[in-house]
Amino acid sequence: MGLATGYNACLITIGNEILIGRIINTNMAWLGKKLTFIGYKVIRGIIAPDIIEEIAWAFNACMQTSPRVIISTGGLGPTFDDKTSEGLATAFNLNLVLNQKALEMVKEKYSKKGLEITPARKKMALLPEGAEPLPNPVGTAPGIHLVIDNTHIFALPGVPSEMKAIYEQSIESLLIKIGPKISFVEQTIRSIGLPESGIAPILDKIMKKYHGVYIKSHPRGKELGKPLQELHITASGKDKNKAQKLVEEVTQELAEELSRLGAKIEYL
Amino acid sequence: MGLATGYNACLITIGNEILIGRIINTNMAWLGKKLTFIGYKVIRGIIAPDIIEEIAWAFNACMQTSPRVIISTGGLGPTFDDKTSEGLATAFNLNLVLNQKALEMVKEKYSKKGLEITPARKKMALLPEGAEPLPNPVGTAPGIHLVIDNTHIFALPGVPSEMKAIYEQSIESLLIKIGPKISFVEQTIRSIGLPESGIAPILDKIMKKYHGVYIKSHPRGKELGKPLQELHITASGKDKNKAQKLVEEVTQELAEELSRLGAKIEYL
Repeated sequence: MGLATGYNACLITIGNEILIGRIINTNMAWLGKKLTFIGYKVIRGIIAPDIIEEIAWAFNACMQTSPRVIISTGGLGPTFDDKTSEGLATAFNLNLVLNQKALEMVKEKYSKKGLEITPARKKMALLPEGAEPLPNPVGTAPGIHLVIDNTHIFALPGVPSEMKAIYEQSIESLLIKIGPKISFVEQTIRSIGLPESGIAPILDKIMKKYHGVYIKSHPRGKELGKPLQELHITASGKDKNKAQKLVEEVTQELAEELSRLGAKIEYL
Repeated sequence: MGLATGYNACLITIGNEILIGRIINTNMAWLGKKLTFIGYKVIRGIIAPDIIEEIAWAFNACMQTSPRVIISTGGLGPTFDDKTSEGLATAFNLNLVLNQKALEMVKEKYSKKGLEITPARKKMALLPEGAEPLPNPVGTAPGIHLVIDNTHIFALPGVPSEMKAIYEQSIESLLIKIGPKISFVEQTIRSIGLPESGIAPILDKIMKKYHGVYIKSHPRGKELGKPLQELHITASGKDKNKAQKLVEEVTQELAEELSRLGAKIEYL
């Protein structure tokens, strides 16, 4: 599907600032790429505001896809509008409890600076019952790890450096271990001079011929006038070399077909 | 809520390329900002892959919020994986029909260049029954406008220049006319030197005092070490001057309180 073919994954971004367009959602793109390349099929993404019921709805909407993993970012800090932990608890009818391990993590960070534990700081240690805190090597709010049925749920802070640090330290190796052991391979070429509507039948033909490969065209110029497309050829499978060979073969055939119709081809 | 207070709006982005992180979702941010500033409350965002059932699910999930408007981007072109029109038809149990007005729009574009109507090009004129095409001043695929109950649904192409052109030419004035007549006002200041967990109680106090104003803190530095926050103060209301005055008053009080605690304040 252009998506990887392994277990489903679902991503959630929490925060009004994303919905009102004040901040562009780079976190979801970063996580989407990471999960795809280790074989997860990112099937759905949801942006929720800082409203407990909407956050809970988002986690439930993700669960509908029977995902192996859900990752949310945002809403884990010390302020009143950081509501992810409560939304997560609401979604699964769990109590919100003071997690001792999380409290130790938070305390340690502040005590090093000679700062005491205020209610705002203690709030970051309130986790849904049964959840485990994940150490935050960069900031103060711990990540959250909760397993419901067969689904691993991770809630991470929205600050990109903290989100990435927790993912890399505590999540990626686990996801590879429990994951689909599938590799995702891609190649991009640029086609200049043919409108996308002229390319469409070629893509159809080649994808019918080669099972398991997906070609997506992204118009970058003007359909009429200065047509230019980036063509993204992808395949995924248990055997990385096989997927790689398939992508190379398809790319070559595609380039030849389009050249024959008059397109100029560039390899990216 | 930091969101505007008017009618609900829901945004959908369609395309595997967003879910796999190949492309960052700037379309949703652009539309979110536009809708917020004309008073719509953007309550939910959904990213759907190029799968008909998932696209249909996204439109239905938006309908659950009783929105005045839903806008989707992506999936309207000539290739096999452009499935938004079919997803929209599926969501509302409508037939997909060849829309004559849309066909004329598409034909005109291609005939100007001496190109014939192929099946791939005709595909862009297949609309859910009852829908109206919206002229695309920049590209070839028309936008789609469908009214279901009290909700205006718009499906736009994913190419940013086309999406923006159709929004500006055919959508914005309609949304203002049928909209909440509410203005959204914002101000941002930067606080340097206090950790976010130290600022949290001040935000609580001020927001309790001033009804209808919302302050959101965005950590930009390090909570411990080099704390820096951008504080985003927003209000919305029927009277723009009143909302403006409220935001100014709150910003001033906030700046004074934080300065008293030792923060350096910068106006952005």
